[in-house]
Amino acid sequence: MPSLIRELRAMQQTAEAIRSAGKRIAVVPTMGSLHEGHLSLIRLAREHADVIVTTIFVNPTQFAPSEDLARYPRNTELDVRLASSAGADHLFVPETEEMYPPIHRTFVEVGELGDILEGKSRPRHFRGVATIVAKLFHLTLPHVAVFGQKDAQQVVVIRRMVEDLNLRVQLVVGPIVREADGLAMSSRNVYLTPTQRAEAAVLHRSLRHAEDMINRGIRDSARIVDAMAGLISDQSSGTIDYISIADASSLKELASLTPRRAALISLAVRFGTTRLIDNVPVIMS
Amino acid sequence: MPSLIRELRAMQQTAEAIRSAGKRIAVVPTMGSLHEGHLSLIRLAREHADVIVTTIFVNPTQFAPSEDLARYPRNTELDVRLASSAGADHLFVPETEEMYPPIHRTFVEVGELGDILEGKSRPRHFRGVATIVAKLFHLTLPHVAVFGQKDAQQVVVIRRMVEDLNLRVQLVVGPIVREADGLAMSSRNVYLTPTQRAEAAVLHRSLRHAEDMINRGIRDSARIVDAMAGLISDQSSGTIDYISIADASSLKELASLTPRRAALISLAVRFGTTRLIDNVPVIMS
Repeated sequence: MPSLIRELRAMQQTAEAIRSAGKRIAVVPTMGSLHEGHLSLIRLAREHADVIVTTIFVNPTQFAPSEDLARYPRNTELDVRLASSAGADHLFVPETEEMYPPIHRTFVEVGELGDILEGKSRPRHFRGVATIVAKLFHLTLPHVAVFGQKDAQQVVVIRRMVEDLNLRVQLVVGPIVREADGLAMSSRNVYLTPTQRAEAAVLHRSLRHAEDMINRGIRDSARIVDAMAGLISDQSSGTIDYISIADASSLKELASLTPRRAALISLAVRFGTTRLIDNVPVIMS
Repeated sequence: MPSLIRELRAMQQTAEAIRSAGKRIAVVPTMGSLHEGHLSLIRLAREHADVIVTTIFVNPTQFAPSEDLARYPRNTELDVRLASSAGADHLFVPETEEMYPPIHRTFVEVGELGDILEGKSRPRHFRGVATIVAKLFHLTLPHVAVFGQKDAQQVVVIRRMVEDLNLRVQLVVGPIVREADGLAMSSRNVYLTPTQRAEAAVLHRSLRHAEDMINRGIRDSARIVDAMAGLISDQSSGTIDYISIADASSLKELASLTPRRAALISLAVRFGTTRLIDNVPVIMS
């Protein structure tokens, strides 16, 4: 079983001892409620480091007051078993009170990158993400940090922060893990009713449809987005929050796809009160 | 002579090599134009570490557009000699273009602590300070960082950031170094005309007067501030920006001094276009 670390000082001392022994640390930050997507990241971490620290922390500063912080699924005991089976050496599960004492005031802001797409629907979300990731990096002292492509904008934001603040950590991004019908794995999928769960597979179908259109030579973003929106409206009761075709680094919307420019097709759709996201990176040759 | 390092990657690699050799690093961040105040911090650093890195960087993000960024005094050659004579082992003098490439977006914000006192007159100043200090910490990997008490609010802001972001660095604060007549040393003193220079000594006299009043048993902040303001108005042409008696940690204004509560008496006064600051920490027994 991996060691369970709860105190900040203990985590930092453990990380320092690992580094002093000349070993490489990989961190896999999570909000717990681990599923196969997270476990694939822990396994991926093993390829890049000697010691794997999985962090489990439902970070309040990345939830808006209206969001699902209170009901976000939590099951630390099960998480410990799952992370262990995937190869985590240490599980860092800090207390909210120690991570954010009442005197806490400092936040890491990433500018407009945090205000678009997910940030538009989730004000201050990426401020909370950047802040907690900076904190976790300083506490776990990783050589490598592994994140999932599922939260594509999060990866862009963290990459920006790492470069801008000169953090010494290599980012590794693991691919999205999907259910048999294509739905991207998410801790929030448990909120879906059986009908919504069945309908939600349309998100991935719409992304595949976009890829097909691009492979057939279609370059116009509006046309692709329209087709995706039509598919989602026809085949589900979901309410589209956004469908975006954007530059993969700046996340600025692209009017059309151009060769060798990495793009990100991403979307957010609500099923009742549950908001699902999915994406596919696209590079035309 | 100390080594002169200009590239970010070279600095980080040098710092990593020093750490790998089991040696302790102290960083002394400066904006150059070194005077005896800075040199005292470099000497103080020697008591806490094996290797001293002095950084010289006139940080544009802590200047407002209306401020003196362009005319801020710069003399790297002389700075290198002075820092060397005080015992610096490495001088890190990065280029603005590498520290802030056009794509840079990330800032560290410290909330209301950055909006009061100096922050009121210098919007975004402490955002720039916190950001550059975070960057310099990630680039120089210090065990210890040495700052001057002269910029008292800066010390409070950085201490807050270090705690909130869980940075592993010990802060050491060196006392204010003064000219013979009591004027706090500052790179900006060169802007003063001979008359202003002579008058500016009243800042320190006003702080000493406040200490005398407190020693005589006066506890009421307004009464002390009034006396200081009177002294400055009577004995100089300076325009008072603020005189503050505040809690030393929160920087919240104190209506009166109370035993064992650390307070900070601080002020900012303009002489022509030159803005001078000074302060004295006070703890009543």
